[in-house]
Amino acid sequence: MPVVTDFVTLSTHGNAEIVDITDQVSQKLKAAKIKNGIVTVSVAGSTAAVTTCEYEPGLVTDIKDIFDKLIPAGQYQHDKTWGDGNGHAHLRASLVGPSVAIPFQDRALLLGTWQQIIVIDFDNRARKRKIILQFVGE
Amino acid sequence: MPVVTDFVTLSTHGNAEIVDITDQVSQKLKAAKIKNGIVTVSVAGSTAAVTTCEYEPGLVTDIKDIFDKLIPAGQYQHDKTWGDGNGHAHLRASLVGPSVAIPFQDRALLLGTWQQIIVIDFDNRARKRKIILQFVGE
Amino acid sequence: MPVVTDFVTLSTHGNAEIVDITDQVSQKLKAAKIKNGIVTVSVAGSTAAVTTCEYEPGLVTDIKDIFDKLIPAGQYQHDKTWGDGNGHAHLRASLVGPSVAIPFQDRALLLGTWQQIIVIDFDNRARKRKIILQFVGE
Repeated sequence: MPVVTDFVTLSTHGNAEIVDITDQVSQKLKAAKIKNGIVTVSVAGSTAAVTTCEYEPGLVTDIKDIFDKLIPAGQYQHDKTWGDGNGHAHLRASLVGPSVAIPFQDRALLLGTWQQIIVIDFDNRARKRKIILQFVGE
Repeated sequence: MPVVTDFVTLSTHGNAEIVDITDQVSQKLKAAKIKNGIVTVSVAGSTAAVTTCEYEPGLVTDIKDIFDKLIPAGQYQHDKTWGDGNGHAHLRASLVGPSVAIPFQDRALLLGTWQQIIVIDFDNRARKRKIILQFVGE
Repeated sequence: MPVVTDFVTLSTHGNAEIVDITDQVSQKLKAAKIKNGIVTVSVAGSTAAVTTCEYEPGLVTDIKDIFDKLIPAGQYQHDKTWGDGNGHAHLRASLVGPSVAIPFQDRALLLGTWQQIIVIDFDNRARKRKIILQFVGE
């Protein structure tokens, strides 16, 4: 059973910018030549997260707002260690998690119609992000 | 190494109804004829989530209550887009995540004694849910 | 394609103690003799969770603090069922999730430089924890 590792590189503005990478994952799946299996989508780094949502502008705003409410930017102990003011970004990323596993069948991702794979970059500055796609299957 | 894709269909009442699907996953594992590996349990759709918990009535109530506290139903931008009043359901689902990966060995799920696989349907109406079980292993 | 199941045993003090298990996962990966694939790191039990973070003392404190704020210890229905006072631990564990999937390539975990794999033991007492590492790949 083959394993195919591929990557997507993103440039984000940080600050809870949400990037829909579903099309890129689908294209990489076609290229991977694996018919059935799981793709693990993960982000290298500890201030960004991967999950799914219905990607539409209202919800993109809502996601930013709910994190501002639950885990606001502010003084965290982490900021005292590094002075980079992104303690909230770390906390949000750990809570959501760095990866999501999506099954696929007949080279199609098994997602809902209104369900997209998203990267949320919680850092407080622009970042380049390396997204890892690992396809395991047959 | 084989890959087996299977499905479980649920009818829920939504509103943070929690369904314990551990027995169904165990039965599908027996049928999959794969001895060791990982099962990825995921829900198609963006208003439900998959995780684990100790499935007992007190905690089922607590889970509903904590989400009502952290991400209450109300006016979100998403609701202005679609008018369906379920913005909170989307936010909760993205936070918990759409899938969980559970290892198995000798055809038994490696879970704790008091740990069940649950689907939480956060939508604000009754739904039919398609749960995807993808077994990868040997 | 081989599957290798391995285990790490931890003794924790509970109370949101955070244990960095990255080195142990890396060592088990070397021993597993699988070059490319995914490791699913999961905890058996419903009061602990697995995720990633930058493991440094400031952030370790911040993670404890944010959970004390969002899901404080207190009277939950679960506590009335069992009388063990750890309802908050269950809720936190279900929210973060019991497992994380990390891809690896050429026998190296594909993590960021400042990204460690952590177990958070939310229970309200000292626990022994069995961490399951399942390597699937080629």
